[in-house]
Amino acid sequence: MPNGAQILIDGLVDGGVRACFANPGTSEMHFVAALDETPGLRPVLCLFEGVATGAADGYGRMTGRPACTLLHLGPGLAGGLPNLHNARRAATPLINVVGDHALHHKRLDAPLESDIGALARTVSAWTRRTYYATELAGDVAAAVAAATGPPGAVATLIVPADVSWSQAGEPSRAAPPGPARRGLVSVDAVTGAAAALRSGADVALLLGGDAVRGAGLAAAGRIAGATGAKLLCETFPARMERGAGRPSVERLAYLAAGAAGQLAGVRHLVLAGAASPVAFFAHPGRGGALVPEGCTVHTLAAGAEDVTAALEGLAEVVGPGGAKPVRQAADRPALPLGELTAESAAAVIGALLPEGAVVVDEANTSGLWLPGATAGAPPHDWLTLTGGAMGQGLPLAVGAGVACPDRPVIALVGDGASMYTLQALWTQAREGLDVTTVVFANRSYAILNLELGAVGGGGERARRLLDLSGPPLDFVALARGMGVPGERTATAEEFAAALKRGVAERGPFLIECGVAALA
Amino acid sequence: MPNGAQILIDGLVDGGVRACFANPGTSEMHFVAALDETPGLRPVLCLFEGVATGAADGYGRMTGRPACTLLHLGPGLAGGLPNLHNARRAATPLINVVGDHALHHKRLDAPLESDIGALARTVSAWTRRTYYATELAGDVAAAVAAATGPPGAVATLIVPADVSWSQAGEPSRAAPPGPARRGLVSVDAVTGAAAALRSGADVALLLGGDAVRGAGLAAAGRIAGATGAKLLCETFPARMERGAGRPSVERLAYLAAGAAGQLAGVRHLVLAGAASPVAFFAHPGRGGALVPEGCTVHTLAAGAEDVTAALEGLAEVVGPGGAKPVRQAADRPALPLGELTAESAAAVIGALLPEGAVVVDEANTSGLWLPGATAGAPPHDWLTLTGGAMGQGLPLAVGAGVACPDRPVIALVGDGASMYTLQALWTQAREGLDVTTVVFANRSYAILNLELGAVGGGGERARRLLDLSGPPLDFVALARGMGVPGERTATAEEFAAALKRGVAERGPFLIECGVAALA
Repeated sequence: MPNGAQILIDGLVDGGVRACFANPGTSEMHFVAALDETPGLRPVLCLFEGVATGAADGYGRMTGRPACTLLHLGPGLAGGLPNLHNARRAATPLINVVGDHALHHKRLDAPLESDIGALARTVSAWTRRTYYATELAGDVAAAVAAATGPPGAVATLIVPADVSWSQAGEPSRAAPPGPARRGLVSVDAVTGAAAALRSGADVALLLGGDAVRGAGLAAAGRIAGATGAKLLCETFPARMERGAGRPSVERLAYLAAGAAGQLAGVRHLVLAGAASPVAFFAHPGRGGALVPEGCTVHTLAAGAEDVTAALEGLAEVVGPGGAKPVRQAADRPALPLGELTAESAAAVIGALLPEGAVVVDEANTSGLWLPGATAGAPPHDWLTLTGGAMGQGLPLAVGAGVACPDRPVIALVGDGASMYTLQALWTQAREGLDVTTVVFANRSYAILNLELGAVGGGGERARRLLDLSGPPLDFVALARGMGVPGERTATAEEFAAALKRGVAERGPFLIECGVAALA
Repeated sequence: MPNGAQILIDGLVDGGVRACFANPGTSEMHFVAALDETPGLRPVLCLFEGVATGAADGYGRMTGRPACTLLHLGPGLAGGLPNLHNARRAATPLINVVGDHALHHKRLDAPLESDIGALARTVSAWTRRTYYATELAGDVAAAVAAATGPPGAVATLIVPADVSWSQAGEPSRAAPPGPARRGLVSVDAVTGAAAALRSGADVALLLGGDAVRGAGLAAAGRIAGATGAKLLCETFPARMERGAGRPSVERLAYLAAGAAGQLAGVRHLVLAGAASPVAFFAHPGRGGALVPEGCTVHTLAAGAEDVTAALEGLAEVVGPGGAKPVRQAADRPALPLGELTAESAAAVIGALLPEGAVVVDEANTSGLWLPGATAGAPPHDWLTLTGGAMGQGLPLAVGAGVACPDRPVIALVGDGASMYTLQALWTQAREGLDVTTVVFANRSYAILNLELGAVGGGGERARRLLDLSGPPLDFVALARGMGVPGERTATAEEFAAALKRGVAERGPFLIECGVAALA
């Protein structure tokens, strides 16, 4: 008769889970032991929980399947919370399996005892502790249902060790129901948006969630073609399809001043899977909402609604019979020569980005020129820092690499950001993932230096607290220490040669790209 | 007129805070900008929040002063939670300053919005959000009072950005009251323990908290000298004073079988600042309490009570006029030759440990021989993994190095454990801390392999999930990548030479100590 751990793994596989990003401990040992009995679940070891959760997020974003982590009690879950925060903002379907002490052990307040439920609820739409092995099959199915939404969400199942090791009875092995359908939007929402689009005033569509990929994006392109509406999307989309031949969509700028420029003159803003735009941070004397005065906001589809169907319906209303969509022309920058800067590095990436690439972008200030330089590159996916919690890039690339073994993954990360979760490189090496990592080494928390300037500049202590130059981080040595080959580049030519090599060779590769910080 | 950030820093300094382990972001920028105006607070940049919180824990354990972190909203706090869990278990006085969105920004649900209070309360004895800059001075004083206890505790102050940037009025600069006195134990508690000690039956004292150092430890030594009682302490003391000339105290074993052996035959167990002992983890068919049948438990002093005074009183009762204390004889192992194993490495450490060393121990299975090999070394402090959350060792060493610039700090860490928070090495290099790190590279989560063996051994997938051999981690390269020199050693002689060098040279040094995993 199977034990709880076996039932749990069977239930995950039945629910569509295929990979488990794991950093287990003693209370998860029965789960670990059961892995060989259910070959449908691929375990991937991560050396830090923040890598496991970020990898699961990347995997979920690229497959649409429920992603899965295995974490060790409260502290293990806690280490993974920053990237679960990002996954929550990305609406990634993600199930955390968190081990706990046996129920009879909990009252003893052993050293690892903590309030796992409280931690889980800060990022999870659904949290449950299983008390009986016989209830585990049902709880796993409920976790899968909660994670797959719609929209996707983080679900956390807390599994006491004795629930794992106890006999669980025969499982039903009934396939769980598929994910619930997304809610349809009302006819009023479509006709309201259509009226705005036909008003003659400047209209922008703000796309979010599913609307930046697949049929939703295609419909948005037809709407823009039929009406001249501007296509914008969230500053930090979970997974955006872009490149030559696809509708060109501008991401709303991170800095409020930039976003204000993009929205200037817009009289109607149609929300399609996105929330009404707000500033990332507040600043003294400024409001947080970004919608300009005199602009009317129309909600075509909220996050949990079927934004794809809504956009398709709207496209048919404003361009009956199929309007000609706007399409991004194929257009790459020339390979630059000479000085390596954030701008010339972006041109190199734009010139060389391979078709079908999965780009993970945590480049922050060094990434300012990336959208422009890569807009006309061959079709690719772009994954961004949805929740603003640093350390997402390298783990996300792990998950994308596991999800898409036949696609090149390119991780573009700032040096500061990379150091939160650098251990991801080891998992890339262990699993032989085809990830090329570019670390923009400007030796600074550059974005914070901009903010420090805005509040008066600070003195020496303040500036030193945002400075990464002493000692300089040697990313080639760090990568080699985890089994990943790498190269340091100081000119645009060297960077181009290294990027070609990284993309051409299978397996992980790291490029330290020395650039100056923005002044 | 000062703004909130300036008042906050002044209040921390007035409360005795001298160092702030920081990983700031935009919402903390006014705090950063204010650092140069109040030179009494030393900022220490950490590249990951888990390093900041672990360093603060180490600093607090070594100074007794309130330690301090500066963290960026919910995700920043979340990244630091595992080591805050350890700090909570260590009863370290520790104040987290966590920035938050401006109050008027919170309702907008910007990407970094999260429930900071819920996260904080999982580790904090005291959590507060300040709503008005004019109330910040009082809130900081309350945070200091909560953190300093008794006993020490984690306190979290959430500071919205607008509270930091708003004018705060003139501060009173009244010095906050000193920490509250510890509660005295009752006469009954002392006489009960004394009666047990005089009963003629086997008696053990289980020491915890302050009882493993200073006057409390000395009194425990006199009690043992007068009565023959066995001196045990918690498995994971926060800071233990030991070595030649001090009372010898055995740490209760991590594995329940070992602890059962230490407690076998004990008829009276006197708790002095420690809780009644329980197993670290539950296992099928075993109870979690470790007190043997027929043993009576006496509480001399609970954690928040004045255990030092209680032990001194008890010593006077059982040995009037001052009994001769038991003392550990000076005794070091000979320097071993040949094969480098966990056992021979421990002998090398015991042979060479410098007087006054601060030893940080997260060696896990590789550390099995360390207590025996170092018991008779010159006097030193020993800091352990109080809460079981991995990744404590290297950050703790950062904090100990900042706290005790004139003492050698030796961090003994497993390879698996080191990888959770390896970024600590960079801060060691930046601050020029005199830390010698020994990484026991057994290329395995060895302790989990023991547990896997206990549940039946698992198959290839299970074993691979606990294996760190492919690719091998090159810790010398990893250290060099963060500005720390290092050496790999494969024999006992090489290890001894490297340890001598690491201790002799100022500044950080790392030794990769290749050992076999326990079978």
